[in-house]
Amino acid sequence: MTDPRPRDNDPEDDDFVPARALVAEVVEAIDAGDAAGLNALLEPVHGADIADLIEQLPPHRRREFIRLYSGEIDAEILTEIDESLREEVIEQLPREVVAEAVREMDTDDVVDLLEDLDPPEREQILAALDAEDRVAVEQSLTYPEYSAGRLMQSEVVTAPQHWTVGETIDFLRREDWLPDQFYHVILVDPRRHPVGYVTLGRLLSAQRTTRLADIAEDSFRTIGVLQDEGDVAYAFNQYHLISAPVVDADDRLVGVITIDDAMGVLDEEHEEDMLRLSGVNEESHVSDGAFATARQRLPWLVVNLFTASLSAIVISRFEDTISSLVMLAALMPIVASTGGIAGTQSLAVAVRALATRDLTSSNARRVVRRELFAGMLNGMGLALILGLAGTLIFGDPKLGMVLAMAMIVNQIVAALGGVLVPLTLERLGLDPALASGTFVTTLTDVMGFLAFLGLATVILL
Amino acid sequence: MTDPRPRDNDPEDDDFVPARALVAEVVEAIDAGDAAGLNALLEPVHGADIADLIEQLPPHRRREFIRLYSGEIDAEILTEIDESLREEVIEQLPREVVAEAVREMDTDDVVDLLEDLDPPEREQILAALDAEDRVAVEQSLTYPEYSAGRLMQSEVVTAPQHWTVGETIDFLRREDWLPDQFYHVILVDPRRHPVGYVTLGRLLSAQRTTRLADIAEDSFRTIGVLQDEGDVAYAFNQYHLISAPVVDADDRLVGVITIDDAMGVLDEEHEEDMLRLSGVNEESHVSDGAFATARQRLPWLVVNLFTASLSAIVISRFEDTISSLVMLAALMPIVASTGGIAGTQSLAVAVRALATRDLTSSNARRVVRRELFAGMLNGMGLALILGLAGTLIFGDPKLGMVLAMAMIVNQIVAALGGVLVPLTLERLGLDPALASGTFVTTLTDVMGFLAFLGLATVILL
Repeated sequence: MTDPRPRDNDPEDDDFVPARALVAEVVEAIDAGDAAGLNALLEPVHGADIADLIEQLPPHRRREFIRLYSGEIDAEILTEIDESLREEVIEQLPREVVAEAVREMDTDDVVDLLEDLDPPEREQILAALDAEDRVAVEQSLTYPEYSAGRLMQSEVVTAPQHWTVGETIDFLRREDWLPDQFYHVILVDPRRHPVGYVTLGRLLSAQRTTRLADIAEDSFRTIGVLQDEGDVAYAFNQYHLISAPVVDADDRLVGVITIDDAMGVLDEEHEEDMLRLSGVNEESHVSDGAFATARQRLPWLVVNLFTASLSAIVISRFEDTISSLVMLAALMPIVASTGGIAGTQSLAVAVRALATRDLTSSNARRVVRRELFAGMLNGMGLALILGLAGTLIFGDPKLGMVLAMAMIVNQIVAALGGVLVPLTLERLGLDPALASGTFVTTLTDVMGFLAFLGLATVILL
Repeated sequence: MTDPRPRDNDPEDDDFVPARALVAEVVEAIDAGDAAGLNALLEPVHGADIADLIEQLPPHRRREFIRLYSGEIDAEILTEIDESLREEVIEQLPREVVAEAVREMDTDDVVDLLEDLDPPEREQILAALDAEDRVAVEQSLTYPEYSAGRLMQSEVVTAPQHWTVGETIDFLRREDWLPDQFYHVILVDPRRHPVGYVTLGRLLSAQRTTRLADIAEDSFRTIGVLQDEGDVAYAFNQYHLISAPVVDADDRLVGVITIDDAMGVLDEEHEEDMLRLSGVNEESHVSDGAFATARQRLPWLVVNLFTASLSAIVISRFEDTISSLVMLAALMPIVASTGGIAGTQSLAVAVRALATRDLTSSNARRVVRRELFAGMLNGMGLALILGLAGTLIFGDPKLGMVLAMAMIVNQIVAALGGVLVPLTLERLGLDPALASGTFVTTLTDVMGFLAFLGLATVILL
């Protein structure tokens, strides 16, 4: 249970977080209304870090910051600011600053930005783009949210496969619209179907007379424009892709997705899994206020209020038992809460394995069987400890036996519930992480109280 | 609470999971001992998917599969197999197959493989490498586990910054040791200090006479060889890096880390956070047996056995109260369990925000204040529902008041505990996810029972 990884004692010693001292100086410059000082302080700071800094400021300082710094807010900063704050920031920026920033962006970043805006602001930003980019962005917005079509950029470097390396390099030297970053030349046939790709490293190290077809990569994968972004991220991670061509229903090339976008999606999906599993289903961000935070969390709390009533109903059926042996009321949460932990463990492992496709219909049966045995093993181990302790402390071997037996039952229920609930949700086409702890802990609470009080009624009274 | 993302009804319809039908055919071929059939079936399958397939087979079929398929197991499959199975697989493979696979690997993958092996097997594999690679691998192994030094590959493409594009391309065409994938030419000074880099896209689109110094990227970041791999992954995600040079203490270039490795680390760190938060601290994998699974989960279960005893002690202090009003025993878990959910929510948000560096010492105070208010708000909302329900169902406004007040107290404790526990661990230099649900639910259980029974004693008796 110790952490094997080296960690700094001060987590902010790691170069990658704007140092606390810098944040303090920025705050000082904001409060002094010192625009020049602010520019000087932030001159060496990466746009992504400036975006983080904006997110971490309290709302009144954020407004003041944007007023003082608006001239410097560029495509990079705007792209990196969290979705929850973008609309607020864009509203406060002068129109021409937004227009200039948007013109600098790749089309996939513009799409990402527009998704969060209301129609009038969307129009305003679309109007700032040049005609070609506008068409690409509008096309992208016709694809469903969270699809590959929304994630791709339309700037693609292609070449016919009969070209030589020399012809391709001459072509690249002539073109001035090339994307900032690209990693492959995609080979297309005359009807713009992608047929392979050549890495830039290969292109650079091959002789000018070599034909592209001869240095194309062996493995080649296209992504359907309607594919879910989560599947896209999985494919990048699984197959170590750097970029992948996106094709429409006719298998025609419509764009390209690069690994940095896929990495962003992977990160969001993880966040979603972790938060959902813990009963936070809506997007939440550190810059949200108390009201927004409370609202995000209330739904599962209310659900839990009702599910917890099930436990209360179960317990109330045993009021006579508790009346005659009040210490049962003190002991019953032990069995229930240990079951809750076991259920949460089993649930987290199953949700993760489903996300990484390690748990599939091919091995589900075996994994469920494993959980059953693991639950039995731990149930017996915990039963031994609890049973002995109960016997020794209360001098009553029967009570020890009740504790032990209830523990075994509940551990098995927990282990099975933890894996069967997400498997069932997955089979129903729902997100397995939606199960959240609530279902499983309700199950283990109810079963824990029922097993303990039921066995106590039969054995002790 | 509904899932906004499009999902397939059958999650295995998504191209990226070996179809169930294929797995069934593979199993059939294994059981028939049909090596040729197996080869034919797996011919079109990517190495990463074959590795997943191996992981999903039950142990006896896995052994048989390896026996039948050993000739085809190459660098890719071996690299992709989960750490928990690698030693087992390598032991079963003929020596020459392993040697051949290892010679094909990049040095970072060899390092990754060796980390999990015992010294005699390590030696055997090192012996299979050519001298230069062996030196690089042994050097890499001298760096601490989970450091950048373990993650980097030593094959680096460098050029002096006074070279022209033409000279660089000619150099690349002459060299035959170039890595499979590379994305930058790193510019170094005569003492091998990296001073910038040029993307391959730029190199390809610039004229032959252009000097490298003139097309180098503006922003340039090196990574210290001792930097924690988690920080490296963060930097790649934050700054959209594709590859980054690794330098030693003298700022001399020793290797390069590419984004696919960083993406793998990000994925592992997420897994670790999610599992730890749920009380599974050791690495766990779907191929683990029941005994291994039980052992991984037992520690926190035993801890919980003891922490749950605290709740039992608290409740036992109120035996007189419960004796005189037994239904209190039935109602008390409602307050406790709703507190548990709120604590888990707050904890998950805080652990995630610490991992993404959105929660830092600059805004910790504000986030804690927000949690306090959010806890109060939800506490009041839930108190209203529960208080009214209690009053109506039991016809006792005093009981309703006890339920309501206890709920408010416990929601505040939960919200604060969820954020303060991980913040404290982080400040102590520990992993905030180590908090796991256990600490926080113990806190909310104890406080829930204490507040409810304490208030009941004062107000109702």
